[in-house]
Amino acid sequence: MDVKIYDTTLRDGAQGEGISFSVDDKIKIARKLDYLGVAYIEGGWPGSNPKDLDFFRQMKECELKHARLSAFSSTRKAGGSVKQDNNISALLAAQVPVAAIFGKAWDFHVLRALETTLTENLHMVRDTVAYLKDRGLEVIFDAEHFFDGYKNNPDYALEVLGAAAGAGAECLVLCDTNGGTMPWELVQIIETVQKNMASPLGIHTHNDSGVAVAHSLLAVNQGCVQVQGTFNNYGERCGNADLCSIIPNLELKMNKRCLPPGNLRRLTEVSHYINEIANMPSPNNQPFVGYGAFAHKGGIHVSALLKDAQTYEHIDPELVGNHRRVLVSELAGISNLLYKAKELNLDVNSYDAETRKVIKQIKDLESQGFQFEGADASLELLLRKAFGQFEDYFQLKNLKIILEKQEEGDFIAEAMIKLTIGDDTFHTAAEGDGPVNALDNSLRKALTEVYPEINEMHLTDYKVRVLDGNLGTAARVRVLIESSNQLEKWSTVGVSENIIEASWQALVDSINYMLMKKSLRQG
Amino acid sequence: MDVKIYDTTLRDGAQGEGISFSVDDKIKIARKLDYLGVAYIEGGWPGSNPKDLDFFRQMKECELKHARLSAFSSTRKAGGSVKQDNNISALLAAQVPVAAIFGKAWDFHVLRALETTLTENLHMVRDTVAYLKDRGLEVIFDAEHFFDGYKNNPDYALEVLGAAAGAGAECLVLCDTNGGTMPWELVQIIETVQKNMASPLGIHTHNDSGVAVAHSLLAVNQGCVQVQGTFNNYGERCGNADLCSIIPNLELKMNKRCLPPGNLRRLTEVSHYINEIANMPSPNNQPFVGYGAFAHKGGIHVSALLKDAQTYEHIDPELVGNHRRVLVSELAGISNLLYKAKELNLDVNSYDAETRKVIKQIKDLESQGFQFEGADASLELLLRKAFGQFEDYFQLKNLKIILEKQEEGDFIAEAMIKLTIGDDTFHTAAEGDGPVNALDNSLRKALTEVYPEINEMHLTDYKVRVLDGNLGTAARVRVLIESSNQLEKWSTVGVSENIIEASWQALVDSINYMLMKKSLRQG
Repeated sequence: MDVKIYDTTLRDGAQGEGISFSVDDKIKIARKLDYLGVAYIEGGWPGSNPKDLDFFRQMKECELKHARLSAFSSTRKAGGSVKQDNNISALLAAQVPVAAIFGKAWDFHVLRALETTLTENLHMVRDTVAYLKDRGLEVIFDAEHFFDGYKNNPDYALEVLGAAAGAGAECLVLCDTNGGTMPWELVQIIETVQKNMASPLGIHTHNDSGVAVAHSLLAVNQGCVQVQGTFNNYGERCGNADLCSIIPNLELKMNKRCLPPGNLRRLTEVSHYINEIANMPSPNNQPFVGYGAFAHKGGIHVSALLKDAQTYEHIDPELVGNHRRVLVSELAGISNLLYKAKELNLDVNSYDAETRKVIKQIKDLESQGFQFEGADASLELLLRKAFGQFEDYFQLKNLKIILEKQEEGDFIAEAMIKLTIGDDTFHTAAEGDGPVNALDNSLRKALTEVYPEINEMHLTDYKVRVLDGNLGTAARVRVLIESSNQLEKWSTVGVSENIIEASWQALVDSINYMLMKKSLRQG
Repeated sequence: MDVKIYDTTLRDGAQGEGISFSVDDKIKIARKLDYLGVAYIEGGWPGSNPKDLDFFRQMKECELKHARLSAFSSTRKAGGSVKQDNNISALLAAQVPVAAIFGKAWDFHVLRALETTLTENLHMVRDTVAYLKDRGLEVIFDAEHFFDGYKNNPDYALEVLGAAAGAGAECLVLCDTNGGTMPWELVQIIETVQKNMASPLGIHTHNDSGVAVAHSLLAVNQGCVQVQGTFNNYGERCGNADLCSIIPNLELKMNKRCLPPGNLRRLTEVSHYINEIANMPSPNNQPFVGYGAFAHKGGIHVSALLKDAQTYEHIDPELVGNHRRVLVSELAGISNLLYKAKELNLDVNSYDAETRKVIKQIKDLESQGFQFEGADASLELLLRKAFGQFEDYFQLKNLKIILEKQEEGDFIAEAMIKLTIGDDTFHTAAEGDGPVNALDNSLRKALTEVYPEINEMHLTDYKVRVLDGNLGTAARVRVLIESSNQLEKWSTVGVSENIIEASWQALVDSINYMLMKKSLRQG
């Protein structure tokens, strides 16, 4: 490998707000990171978190193909001995091949946070690294606050690195812990370090100034051979540098190998998997791996893309396991629609009267407040209906919802539905947490006898937008529903002055889409 | 100003997935951007979107204090004349002082997307810029795909810039349209341009490689004097460079003035406001302005922070109008609350048991999803209730809403309400466009006999936000209602898994607030 990827999702990433991994979560993520092929996985800080020791114990039964497992610790305490240091004993108990030791490189931190002397801090670094080297570990030294430290006292910051290198650290990692350094400062400081140190260097950055990814790339461009970061930018405050951006930039733009051949295509899958485990949303516009990272909306962009994808894409999305999407919206022209229809194998062309009719229909719906760019499935149903390829799976006869509240009590929501499928009539009732939930429950109850596959699908997101707020409660609302089953994820839309009607439209589309897909798969 | 901020949230930002601004939204955002004090506001592309012309027409009645309004357009069409070009006519019809004209700087795009000759493209640039200069406009030239173009054919890319400069363009903006350039390439290319061009340069980057903010800063460090970007990173695919990161980096790290003195403190407020209007979530870890951008979780971080905030913060959060948060012991908010209570002449202090109880109550409500920042009136009612200064104006006895739909027909919504005011009982029913509207109508009908002033108040805005989308239709929702009468405007909030319950809470608060204000004025 030209550059070693050091993943700290499970340690520094776990310090992000809203992240709380169980031991089982950590094991799943570690396996997935190994499947991607990173060089190191930092599993935790055994001295600070007893749960982490459990993780390391269980990981002994889990064979990793590519990654070396690492445990994190501070240097020994000021005035103490390494042998009796709790953090270091816990690290050894983790029985990992790699230790990442962080030491203070900023004199201000030594004096103010550790409240010890500059000399004692150097001893702490030297003692800790040497002790772990003696016990056969690979030792990575994280120079905390290195850039702030260098700016404040360059000689001392270099002395700290020298202490770690002298004691045998394999790699010196320069950390921008507070994330406040500017790119040109970072480059200059790395150049000076290189003049003073022969050791291999690594980089560890935080995103407080919004430049963590650029910093990681600039450091590699200067010659750093290890990059520390997290998946999906997890981490304290604004997060660590996002490996989802760093890895493809290294491989595709800088021609630096950092994953086993062919594995880059797993990147999008791994990113989304980790978000699923962490229960974090996947940002739509996340570079490289976001669902919308290769989504095109502007009409001129799409008409150029039809000629050559390179016109508005910096890389082929398939290289990172992602896909191109074309959004149909009021900003888009006919070309977006043609692109979409082609994907569906519909026989359309821009001169056709039928096609013109569909375009007019879409424009009309959009002017009513429909928005199809976030509702692929509704758009597909609309196109298939227009070209005679779709019939509804059921007919509504009657629908009634009753909401009732007594004094300070909660609302009770009940829905009754009567519908027909072919010649059969189904009549059901159900309660729910609110009117839409009750509606959803009773509709499923009615359909499930004929279409048991309904039970495999779930609503995974529900969004409401009020379109013209200044009409008060009589304003129109747009409801977007996202649904999924084990195979895919789809979105549908409804618009009305009545939120229940809008929800109903989106619900019906969602169910019709799922049933249609199933029958298409069955041929 | 050392650097001019050119905001394109309303144009390039509108090309982001999920963004759909009404004319009214655009006007609100333009006013807010002017309140922040950016140098330019790009309002839209009148030739491509007729709605944008409407925006420019309405903006004529809106005086801007700091910003110059700009309209966007391509160069004239190949083989056509500028005078008869629809895009250019629409731009002139917008009657703005500034035009941003984008032209192709990548030979591949000229040949492949425009399907014209390299020479004709130069004429298109020259003709368009010269024509608009003749008509008295300030012309900014956006060299689309400049960096890709330069890499492919440096001479031609420079010729395009030369054509624009020769025709009188005030600023040449180098665009990384596909967002695929690496930082060191960007720096080198800007250096070469500077050797060949005397014109002021600007920078416009996209975030496809995760380095758009760094690119903008590096460009200014090289001498660029205009930065184009969007708020909150809106824009096609992975978005444009985020002005929320660029602006504070310029002012605080690079000592470049780009806002009127003192206005940087408005940054967080403006960022969140724009997300509210766009109905986009504010990412918790967004640098500088995110709710968690200065949130500390790690134990050693917090203990060091207690000694000195500089240990783990690159800037003082107050400088950008943000706040520090400590995730283990939530202390924030007390001072805000004391401030608010003082405004209301309530006798509170932070050592008082009563005050502590209110703080706890607010924290509990906030953890359920209530948000009082946007609902002053609900907060005031809560405080007055806690200090015994408020009694409800009516008591609900019973509330029933019935929604019914037959086959393809519309939903019919009816609400029945029974309430008491003192010893009197009122029982009414009303229809509405939807359940909330029906509820509003029947509640007003019941109250109006005793409180005729109800007729003077109107609901002027109604917003719904789903709080935890991944629970499907059983997710919790927050409803924000804005109401007004001739004297003032107030906002109230409700939260529940049932949208009707949440709306009910906000409605009741809104009416109670209005009646309370009236009696305070009379008493």
